[in-house]
Amino acid sequence: MKVGKQTIKLENTPKILQTSSMVGPKEKQGPLSIYFDLDTQDIFLGEKSFEKAESKMMETCINNLLNKASVKNEDIDYIFAGDLLNQCISSGYCMRNLGIPFFGLYGACSTFCESLTLASLFVNANYASKAIAATSSHFCSAERQFRMPLEHGNQKSPTAQCTVTASGSAIVVKKEDGIPGPYVTHVTPGKIIDYNVTDMTNMGAAMAPAAFNTIAMHLQDTGRTADYYDAIVTGDLGVLGSEILVDIFRKEGIELNGIHADCGALIYDHDKQDTHCGGSGCGCMASVFSGYFFEQLKTKKMNKILIVATGALMSTLSSQQGESIPGIAHAVAIENEV
Amino acid sequence: MKVGKQTIKLENTPKILQTSSMVGPKEKQGPLSIYFDLDTQDIFLGEKSFEKAESKMMETCINNLLNKASVKNEDIDYIFAGDLLNQCISSGYCMRNLGIPFFGLYGACSTFCESLTLASLFVNANYASKAIAATSSHFCSAERQFRMPLEHGNQKSPTAQCTVTASGSAIVVKKEDGIPGPYVTHVTPGKIIDYNVTDMTNMGAAMAPAAFNTIAMHLQDTGRTADYYDAIVTGDLGVLGSEILVDIFRKEGIELNGIHADCGALIYDHDKQDTHCGGSGCGCMASVFSGYFFEQLKTKKMNKILIVATGALMSTLSSQQGESIPGIAHAVAIENEV
Repeated sequence: MKVGKQTIKLENTPKILQTSSMVGPKEKQGPLSIYFDLDTQDIFLGEKSFEKAESKMMETCINNLLNKASVKNEDIDYIFAGDLLNQCISSGYCMRNLGIPFFGLYGACSTFCESLTLASLFVNANYASKAIAATSSHFCSAERQFRMPLEHGNQKSPTAQCTVTASGSAIVVKKEDGIPGPYVTHVTPGKIIDYNVTDMTNMGAAMAPAAFNTIAMHLQDTGRTADYYDAIVTGDLGVLGSEILVDIFRKEGIELNGIHADCGALIYDHDKQDTHCGGSGCGCMASVFSGYFFEQLKTKKMNKILIVATGALMSTLSSQQGESIPGIAHAVAIENEV
Repeated sequence: MKVGKQTIKLENTPKILQTSSMVGPKEKQGPLSIYFDLDTQDIFLGEKSFEKAESKMMETCINNLLNKASVKNEDIDYIFAGDLLNQCISSGYCMRNLGIPFFGLYGACSTFCESLTLASLFVNANYASKAIAATSSHFCSAERQFRMPLEHGNQKSPTAQCTVTASGSAIVVKKEDGIPGPYVTHVTPGKIIDYNVTDMTNMGAAMAPAAFNTIAMHLQDTGRTADYYDAIVTGDLGVLGSEILVDIFRKEGIELNGIHADCGALIYDHDKQDTHCGGSGCGCMASVFSGYFFEQLKTKKMNKILIVATGALMSTLSSQQGESIPGIAHAVAIENEV
C-alpha cells in the first residue's frame, strides 16, 4: 500500500530468510572480515577475464545462499539482479546457469536496494513465494571499464572510492507466524537528484543529496524520526559523502551522527588499506548488509534499520560529453518486530 | 497471484490508459508511419550527441504521454525505464528532468515488456495508482557503441537487424468500472535461454528459443492455446528469427502462422528500406506496441494480444571474450474484456 508521496508499506511484511556474501582479498583484510561467508584470494576465480570472474563470484554467492537457506533453484519464483558492467553482463551470464526467471536491473550502486525492494514487493503481493535479490561488483572489471586499465598503475584522487570486489544476495519469503524476522516493512524508491557535480572522482558528493532526499521522504511518509532506527545505513557515500549527508541533515535540524553508518566507509580500514574515501560498487552494500547488518539483526544487536543504497547514473561517455552525475537512492526498512 | 510455474495473474486487471510513440526518419518512412504520434527528421533532435538525442527523444515521448493522458508528472507514482546504452544513460538523464521515482531496468530489447510488467504489477498490488513504462533506442548511439562508428560506413550482414530510432511509453492505471480497457491480465517473466549462438549479427537466432520458452510457458501456465490470442507479438526477432520461432513451434505441433507478428519485421518495408532482417532495439516493440497495437486494441480490431519482448544480454566485451548470446523474453497479455 502506498503511504505518503513515495513510500510503500508492506502489509504482509515478507521475511528475509537468509543472506549470502562473498568478497575479494582486500575486503577480506578489512574490519568486517569475519562477517563474510566466502572469500577468494584469486581475483580471477579461476576464470580467464575479470568479467567472467565477477559473474562467477555472483553465481557462487547465490549458490551459497540457496545452500544456506536449504532451497533449490526451481523453488525460487523470480530473481532480481544487476551490476555495473556494460549491459550488466555479470548478472546476465550468472543467470544463464541458474535457470530462474530474471529481472535485470540497472541502478549503479543503488541496485542492491532496488533488487531487494522488488523481491520484497513481489513476495508481499503474493506474486512470489520466494524471491532473490543479488548484485556484484569487481575492482578490476570496474577499473578498466570506468577508469583506466590496471596496468596503467593510475593514481587515485583523495576523494575517490575503490570499487569493492564483492557480491551479496538475499532470499525473501512469506512471513510465517511464530518464525522470527527480520522483515521488510517499508520501501521508499528514490528519484534522481542532480546538484551538478561533474567530478567522477567524487561520487560521494554527487550521491549525498539523493540519499538525503530519499531518507527525508521516507521519514516524512512514515511519520518516523531518524532515531526510530538503530541505524540508517547508506550504500557507499564513502567518508566524504557521509560527512556531506550528515551536514545536510544538520542544516535541516536533524542529527544523524550516532545513527548513520555507511557501507563504503565500513568495509575498509582507512588508516591501513589506502582506500581513500572507502568502498563503492553494487557489491558494497550487498556484501556489507548480507554479511554484517543481517547478523546484527539476527542477533538482535539491532532491531530496526533503514538501508539506503545510493547510485550515480552516469557513464564514461556522459562524463566525456560534459554531463553532471545524476544521483539516486532507494531505501528499504528492515525490522525484527512487526 | 502466481499461476503455474512462471506466470502472474493480475486479478485487478490494471488498465493501459494511454500510450505514446516517437520515431526517427527511417521508421517514419516505414509501413506503420501513420500510427506514430511524433517523429523527428533531425536525428540529433537539436542536441550535440546521439546519446543526448536519444535521451531527449525518450523525454519528449513521455511528456507527450502525460499530455495525451492529461496527467501531471507529480501524479505518477513510479516510472520503470531502460535502454541499450552503457549504464542506461538515455533513461538516467531523461529521468533527471521528470522528477518521478525511478526504477532503472536492463533487459536489452526485452526491456519494454519488463517495464510494462513491473508498472502493471505495481498498480495491480496497489503500490501505485499510476505508473509509466518507457524505453528508447537510437540507431546512431547503438551503432557506435555496439558495432562501428557510423563514419566507417560498415556493411551489415544479411541476418543483421537495424536498431530503430524510437521511443515508446505507456501509462498504467487502476481499472474503473464502466471505463473500457485494454487491461493487463497476465505476465510471464522469462528466464535466460542460451543455445550457444555466438554470431552478434544474427540476434534473431539467439533470441528465438527464449521467445519460444516464454510463450510455451505462458500457454502452459494459463491453460490457453496459441489461437486464444488475436496476435502473439514478439519484440524484435526480425524476419529470420520469426521463421525460427514458427519452426520451433511447428515441431511442437503448434501452428503460429497467422497468429504471430514481430515488431522488428513490421516496422520497416524490407523491399524498399534496405534493413536486412528488420528492426531491433528497446524502442522497437515500445513504439510499435504504443503506436500500432494499442490502436488495434482501442478500435477493437484486436481484443486479445500477447506481447513478448525479446532481449540478447551480451555486450561487445562478452562477445570479444568468446561468450555466446544469452536470450531472454518477457510476455504481457493484454485484453479488452476481463
